[in-house]
Amino acid sequence: MASIAEIKQSEPVARASAIAEIRTLLGERLSTASAVREQHGKGEAYHRPVPPDAVAFVETTEEAAAVVKICARHKLAIVPFGTGTSLEGHTAALHGGICIDVTRMNKVLQVNASDLDVRVQPGVTRKQLNEHLRDTGLFFPIDPGADASLGGMAATRASGTNAVRYGTMRENVLSLEVVLADGSVIRTGRRARKSSAGYDLTRMFVGSEGTLGVITEVTLRLYGIPEATSVAMCAFPTVKQAVDTVIATIQSGVPVARIELADAVQMDAINRYSKLNLAVRPTLWLEFHGSEASVAEQAETVQAISADNGGGAFDWTTDPAERKRLWQARHDVAYAAKALRPGCSIWATDVCVPISRLADCIVETQKDLETASFPAPIVGHVGDGNFHLSFVLDTAKPEEVAEANRLNDRLVARALSMEGTCTGEHGVGYGKIDFLDQEHGPAMAVMRAIKTSLDPHNIMNPGKIVRV
Amino acid sequence: MASIAEIKQSEPVARASAIAEIRTLLGERLSTASAVREQHGKGEAYHRPVPPDAVAFVETTEEAAAVVKICARHKLAIVPFGTGTSLEGHTAALHGGICIDVTRMNKVLQVNASDLDVRVQPGVTRKQLNEHLRDTGLFFPIDPGADASLGGMAATRASGTNAVRYGTMRENVLSLEVVLADGSVIRTGRRARKSSAGYDLTRMFVGSEGTLGVITEVTLRLYGIPEATSVAMCAFPTVKQAVDTVIATIQSGVPVARIELADAVQMDAINRYSKLNLAVRPTLWLEFHGSEASVAEQAETVQAISADNGGGAFDWTTDPAERKRLWQARHDVAYAAKALRPGCSIWATDVCVPISRLADCIVETQKDLETASFPAPIVGHVGDGNFHLSFVLDTAKPEEVAEANRLNDRLVARALSMEGTCTGEHGVGYGKIDFLDQEHGPAMAVMRAIKTSLDPHNIMNPGKIVRV
Repeated sequence: MASIAEIKQSEPVARASAIAEIRTLLGERLSTASAVREQHGKGEAYHRPVPPDAVAFVETTEEAAAVVKICARHKLAIVPFGTGTSLEGHTAALHGGICIDVTRMNKVLQVNASDLDVRVQPGVTRKQLNEHLRDTGLFFPIDPGADASLGGMAATRASGTNAVRYGTMRENVLSLEVVLADGSVIRTGRRARKSSAGYDLTRMFVGSEGTLGVITEVTLRLYGIPEATSVAMCAFPTVKQAVDTVIATIQSGVPVARIELADAVQMDAINRYSKLNLAVRPTLWLEFHGSEASVAEQAETVQAISADNGGGAFDWTTDPAERKRLWQARHDVAYAAKALRPGCSIWATDVCVPISRLADCIVETQKDLETASFPAPIVGHVGDGNFHLSFVLDTAKPEEVAEANRLNDRLVARALSMEGTCTGEHGVGYGKIDFLDQEHGPAMAVMRAIKTSLDPHNIMNPGKIVRV
Repeated sequence: MASIAEIKQSEPVARASAIAEIRTLLGERLSTASAVREQHGKGEAYHRPVPPDAVAFVETTEEAAAVVKICARHKLAIVPFGTGTSLEGHTAALHGGICIDVTRMNKVLQVNASDLDVRVQPGVTRKQLNEHLRDTGLFFPIDPGADASLGGMAATRASGTNAVRYGTMRENVLSLEVVLADGSVIRTGRRARKSSAGYDLTRMFVGSEGTLGVITEVTLRLYGIPEATSVAMCAFPTVKQAVDTVIATIQSGVPVARIELADAVQMDAINRYSKLNLAVRPTLWLEFHGSEASVAEQAETVQAISADNGGGAFDWTTDPAERKRLWQARHDVAYAAKALRPGCSIWATDVCVPISRLADCIVETQKDLETASFPAPIVGHVGDGNFHLSFVLDTAKPEEVAEANRLNDRLVARALSMEGTCTGEHGVGYGKIDFLDQEHGPAMAVMRAIKTSLDPHNIMNPGKIVRV
């Protein structure tokens, strides 16, 4: 958790005027209730929440644009809000102002089955979308764990377990509708699969965390549900051997859909939480998508690679119930980590490095954690070189928080020294804003120039990504 | 060919001073020879060439930065230049100024086999890179036809025949080094496969056509050479049946590597040029990558889909010599088109639409071409909904040029009316700049804001993408 270097209250007259105007527009859909404000000032991370002055529950793009126009006139800050599942303080209203909650904009607008794309409002969650698609034979693969809103996933450039095959939100957003800082509404692209017609505005807004505009519509790529799916699980003597298996798998061209790693600490936590008896060793989960023959062949290839790298018994199945059983342990990692210290909080952090450095990065991190006063299990989307640490903290103890800060700083420094990034998928928010100069150097001036040119009064989610 | 609404000469004193300073820096590597300037003012398109005042053959990033700093001080325009194979007048020096030729920056700097990536200087061409990679088992898949420089391919967001499986330059550039308009040098990202650490500067510069900076280094994704490759060719009674085969193939999840279409006019041209006897009907070429078993299975699946859609004999092979023979006809389309009217020029244009609209778009375009006074064969990367028209023009006849302009305008209007884009892969240059307002509407204000904030004096390839 970074310190909040930048926190200030909104100007009282501007705030009162803006709230009055928005109330005229939205009636009871503008809330200043303390419980509502509190809930909207935080995410799922252990970062200090900061409530907005009011929460506007908009139902249309026009309403979102009208709210932005009012805020722009009064130079009041705006924080867009989906499901509140972000992990780096993205939704903390550091300058106060109005939270624009888009959860009521939750319609699937248009499924284009032939084109494998879909147009949704930003409050639609990924599970809601997949439920909606159930009878079409199509699915949306990006799975960050939480049942996040698709607008929020676009805003944070979310990814997750399927990214090694299907990419992240970066690759899967075809187009966005965005309300800019002056209340004007743009569309960043068209439904064509590719285009060379000008600057890539879609990619500029994907990952911009509400600092350049409010996302009011998302067009996404879809995929055919694979004919067959198989899942495998395998334990290794060392992290290096597990990671070498991953590298060889990807190099061999096996189109693996997921490759997930948990370290021994995490496996121990899973055993305790789920009353299992899994090997307390670095473990890979793998998932293969394709035809029946293809998934069998993929599993065989990886089994051979795994055996070459000291992998143990290779537990694999195509049976849906068995697949679910194998994945359950992976899905439970957060609960399992939390159960290690009842009453404690999880501070989740992530980094991403070139895969050739992944084993070193994890092993050095584990060494750094050996003397920590709290547990910190590791899981990773290792096909991408991305891994997560969960500090299981007693937040009542300032010394634990300070220690977690030091460990996090060293984790990021280690990843950066290996040509990696300070966050592979959680994003910047205000929790990682202090690392960006170190990561990007002079390129931060370009980010600052973009921010300033599109949001000259710094009203769009101020204090996130770039300080101006 | 759009008219050049914007052409002006550089200011004589500024020009003379800048050239003198750059000559001090580069010696004979600054050329003002008329043949060199002429060659650098044009691409491969039928667009009016406009030569720069001088051509600077830089050998390092530092030299490129020094040239940009000199130009910035004198407010002289800069046009980056790779192999000069662009198709929309990207390299025409509309404001005069200095062409920065990067072809001497042609070193492969670092192959990271475990990470499946490579760092190259911008003048390395795609064939040179693949030659360099020959013994590594890896390859770089993006193939726009021409043996273009990788810096130029990044600048134009190139794609080509493999994009349906491997994506375009958008998906395959990991990071860029860029000299900005003030001569400062930034790196847009790190080698990690994914990152959520701030705005996606890499994607902002990919496709920016030199209007935001000069690309001086490119980090690219690589792929393992597939164990097996098979190629198939199949003729269809109608374009619609061919396209329906493509849609069903993609929906079924077959990870097809290439799907190319040629219309009957193009097939006739191929027969005449290559003295072949192929069916003069809409024809698909398909390529499959994977294991031996997988490519056989993919070909079988597509053969069945093709038969359902009226496809004729399905000619398929895994033999390298046979594969080459099948592709040869496709590779020859440009020569075959040109041979239809000896002495004439090709004006190549492209659009991209959602694949569900592709058959309609092609059929309507064919109707529009029926009464044209020149041939205009169609080929397409149909897996992406992208297709190309080659107007085979006698450029000495202004009425033919005017007619091609009208046909091109209608082609773009048709694509835009179908939620498509005015260019899928050739880019904007100045040839398509007049279509961007129509395509992007209010979003053009955002492009203009980005351009103005990063290049306040409009010296970076002025008159391309956005007019300011």
